[in-house]
Amino acid sequence: MSNLRLALAQTNPTVGALEANAAQILAVARTAKSAGADLVVFAEMALTGYPIEDLASRVSFLVETEATVDRLTKELATSEFDGLTVVLGHPALASANIRTGWAIAQNCASVIQSGRVIGRYAKHHLPNYSVFDEYRIFVPGNELLTFDVNGLKVSTVICEDIWQSGGPVAKLSENETDLCLILNGSPFEIDKDDRRQGLVKDLAIKQNCAAAYVNLVGGQDDLVFDGDSIAIDSNGKLIARLKQFKEDLLLVDVTSKSEIAVVGDHFLTKPNDNWQAWNALVTGLRDYVRKNGFSSVVLGLSGGIDSAVCATIAADALGPENVYGVSMPSRYSSTGSKDDAEDLANRRGINYQVQPIENLVKPFESQLGLTDLAAENLQARVRGVILMGLSNKHGMLTLTTGNKTELAVGYSTIYGDTVGGYAPLKDVEKTLVWELAKWRNSYAKNRGEIEPIPQASIEKPPSAELRPDQVDQDSLPAYDVLDQILEAYVNQRRSIQEIVNLGFEKSLVEKILQMVDRSEWKRRQGAIGPKITGMAFGRDRRLPITNKFKG
Amino acid sequence: MSNLRLALAQTNPTVGALEANAAQILAVARTAKSAGADLVVFAEMALTGYPIEDLASRVSFLVETEATVDRLTKELATSEFDGLTVVLGHPALASANIRTGWAIAQNCASVIQSGRVIGRYAKHHLPNYSVFDEYRIFVPGNELLTFDVNGLKVSTVICEDIWQSGGPVAKLSENETDLCLILNGSPFEIDKDDRRQGLVKDLAIKQNCAAAYVNLVGGQDDLVFDGDSIAIDSNGKLIARLKQFKEDLLLVDVTSKSEIAVVGDHFLTKPNDNWQAWNALVTGLRDYVRKNGFSSVVLGLSGGIDSAVCATIAADALGPENVYGVSMPSRYSSTGSKDDAEDLANRRGINYQVQPIENLVKPFESQLGLTDLAAENLQARVRGVILMGLSNKHGMLTLTTGNKTELAVGYSTIYGDTVGGYAPLKDVEKTLVWELAKWRNSYAKNRGEIEPIPQASIEKPPSAELRPDQVDQDSLPAYDVLDQILEAYVNQRRSIQEIVNLGFEKSLVEKILQMVDRSEWKRRQGAIGPKITGMAFGRDRRLPITNKFKG
Repeated sequence: MSNLRLALAQTNPTVGALEANAAQILAVARTAKSAGADLVVFAEMALTGYPIEDLASRVSFLVETEATVDRLTKELATSEFDGLTVVLGHPALASANIRTGWAIAQNCASVIQSGRVIGRYAKHHLPNYSVFDEYRIFVPGNELLTFDVNGLKVSTVICEDIWQSGGPVAKLSENETDLCLILNGSPFEIDKDDRRQGLVKDLAIKQNCAAAYVNLVGGQDDLVFDGDSIAIDSNGKLIARLKQFKEDLLLVDVTSKSEIAVVGDHFLTKPNDNWQAWNALVTGLRDYVRKNGFSSVVLGLSGGIDSAVCATIAADALGPENVYGVSMPSRYSSTGSKDDAEDLANRRGINYQVQPIENLVKPFESQLGLTDLAAENLQARVRGVILMGLSNKHGMLTLTTGNKTELAVGYSTIYGDTVGGYAPLKDVEKTLVWELAKWRNSYAKNRGEIEPIPQASIEKPPSAELRPDQVDQDSLPAYDVLDQILEAYVNQRRSIQEIVNLGFEKSLVEKILQMVDRSEWKRRQGAIGPKITGMAFGRDRRLPITNKFKG
Repeated sequence: MSNLRLALAQTNPTVGALEANAAQILAVARTAKSAGADLVVFAEMALTGYPIEDLASRVSFLVETEATVDRLTKELATSEFDGLTVVLGHPALASANIRTGWAIAQNCASVIQSGRVIGRYAKHHLPNYSVFDEYRIFVPGNELLTFDVNGLKVSTVICEDIWQSGGPVAKLSENETDLCLILNGSPFEIDKDDRRQGLVKDLAIKQNCAAAYVNLVGGQDDLVFDGDSIAIDSNGKLIARLKQFKEDLLLVDVTSKSEIAVVGDHFLTKPNDNWQAWNALVTGLRDYVRKNGFSSVVLGLSGGIDSAVCATIAADALGPENVYGVSMPSRYSSTGSKDDAEDLANRRGINYQVQPIENLVKPFESQLGLTDLAAENLQARVRGVILMGLSNKHGMLTLTTGNKTELAVGYSTIYGDTVGGYAPLKDVEKTLVWELAKWRNSYAKNRGEIEPIPQASIEKPPSAELRPDQVDQDSLPAYDVLDQILEAYVNQRRSIQEIVNLGFEKSLVEKILQMVDRSEWKRRQGAIGPKITGMAFGRDRRLPITNKFKG
């Protein structure tokens, strides 16, 4: 019989902010120690943020990271931390090529005890698929690290190690591990949560040990880490669960591998998928804005559903006083659209202004003689110039409001409605935009708040309003059909024939797939936005622009 | 004693154009056979083009590739090809995950003889650095493939296999290989040529065999393959060299590993670095335009050096009749600039028009109240709207004329001078732009042609002309200083302190590095352009946008 009080520390580091991240780690360690913790475990790369991409190839970055580990170790050697063991994720220099200046790192967990690093584990399995490029920057480790805390044997592994068979994880039971610490930088995807829990349960049961899974939280460019750290006993029972999308610290008392009890209140369930998706979008936007030194955002409000949802996400993330909506009506804008844009702004108290485009568009039309599609694109580009002008004038980040479905088929004007540094709906297909809008309204209603999104924006047929009586379905199939075809092609990599076999007309499938392929160049120049599905555009899906394959 | 006539076939496939590429391969095989070849070897991925990126993860793509190999094999079984062995690079399906639809491929060389594929080699070393992501899409092979042609033992390896130690290459001598075929998709970099030749010589001498190195030629998105295939005997002597930047076929007679003779005329030397860099830029642009179905390009002509060089590259690539230059003067444009733009257009006979921006800019300024930097950016964005309007109206590809130095420090207006689908100077630093301009003029002079680039554009101080009397050096250090700092930071990944140690002022170094880091978001939204150095912006250098590291 022994007793070990374990703290799971779910922090939100900023990539490269070594000093600030270290200060945060020290503060959390202090809180954990005050609460009686013997052991505190942080997430993968908690010291540097994650993913660090090619920063891992810079010698100076790795040297400064190591110096920061040293400083932290010294600070943890003072008497206030007596008896506390700290496990911390960070990269470490493995080798460097003097000629090229290129360094190679390992993805490590350091165990800090009694004023020194008593051991360092290097991640064994390096993910090199989806958004991950870890073979590019890391070399794998191949040894398990086990150490003693209060008479319990504790081992460490890192993230991908539990997603692949073999390697150190398979040796946990052989090493008589009581408690396995799993450090993670695992980005949010809708539905991914249950797969993580399944893997950790599996590991606990197969290797006969308790397991503490600690994940990062917060947004980093196109990824959102949701936290949702968990503790599971050796019978595979879920004992503790940390918050999603928030920094959190939870204590559990480990008497033996099969006897774990959580300290204080907590919840083992989490809200539904729509709540999770919404909060991922809010977290992604909030952290992109905050970590890049902005305080406010500007976006076009067309009265349509996409800009309404974007504005609401922004208001939830930053407060409505930091959101600036601009209505930019043209001769083709309906009164309804203008009213809906204003209504949207008023519901949440978003800043609102109107900038008609007629007097800006006309001189271009007459000087260049633009008609048809060129004239439609012109309107969108004039709006882009307005938004960027206001962004430059006031130092606001411009949001681009396009959704994943538009991005897929290229239904947008490049340098027009695509302008902006961040695209909140980049990975949200049109049908999910509607679903989230309805969910957000009912969430407000249930809490006795004003529904933020005008019903008219949800119900009216979507239109770019770039010519008289235009609707999206002039150029595209119904969105529920389109999203099904895109799911099959983009997410599941199905062939034309396989998609036709699902029951869609061949000519339609061919047309849609061609639109997707031909828009690759536009997507390459698009803003980043938060990945929330298993296949986001961006580094998750890497295809040539020049590509003649049809199949 | 034996005799084997070997054909080195340097082709320019288009990614994904399986049928067209196969037809090209068959035609070249026919030519080789007519010239008496016993063996013809094509480059890495000659059947599919390269790199195929995540196309390799689509089952249907790999299935259709295999079907195309089958068809080719049947066509090569007819009597006209009697006795010809064909070695061909292509991807092959290794495994597929039914749940995710994700396929895993191998990067292969198939040996086609007497109407069947008698062997298939899978690349052993998979590059996963720089622009390469081969661990993402391929699994490595681990066996050497050796076969007999006219009594000589022939083995195959692929590209990276000769850049790394160990693996199949180390077994060539043990297997008594007479002739090693090396299939390559090796992109051009200034100065890379000699490294390739060194490696092949090394292999020939160490493994005691002759070697034929066959490379792709042509542009594919941001890469340019320069060809420059070579044959080397077992003493390490260079026997034959194919053209750079052109499709080519060369025959060599192999009597034994140490006795090789080239058939017909050829040159063992190649032109200087400036010629190579220029031709890489011309090839990259030509193939991007051609392979993506465009026939003409439009670009802004400011009278400055960047747009002059871009226009000249375009004229060399597409013919001046397919290049449309647009002068877009403002109240700040000097008479000299306007004259230089027109002079440039006249020298090569490029199409030329003038679109003053004054009447387009004013309405924005007064409606939005823009001043200072916001007003400067506005002018650039209005020009972007003009170019994209003309592009949309006439179906021309827009070229963006920014150079690598500007891209590095963010000295550009996003959605303004950065608009366009292709950036010819993306990997050409400012000092090299000047050097290439002078080289191109003297090249013309030596051939008795009109020098294409106005002397004034080369000599005058660079200026964005967005406010009165502005020059680039108001905001930036001298370009030769700036390019040295960028070389150290971007290309060699040096730290602030290391760069200061080279003799630059600390405050300047810190300022420049901060400009580079802060422009990452702009670079992400930039057009692709041809990589010609060891470190191009784009997938060669992957850094987070959100990144607080300074060091």
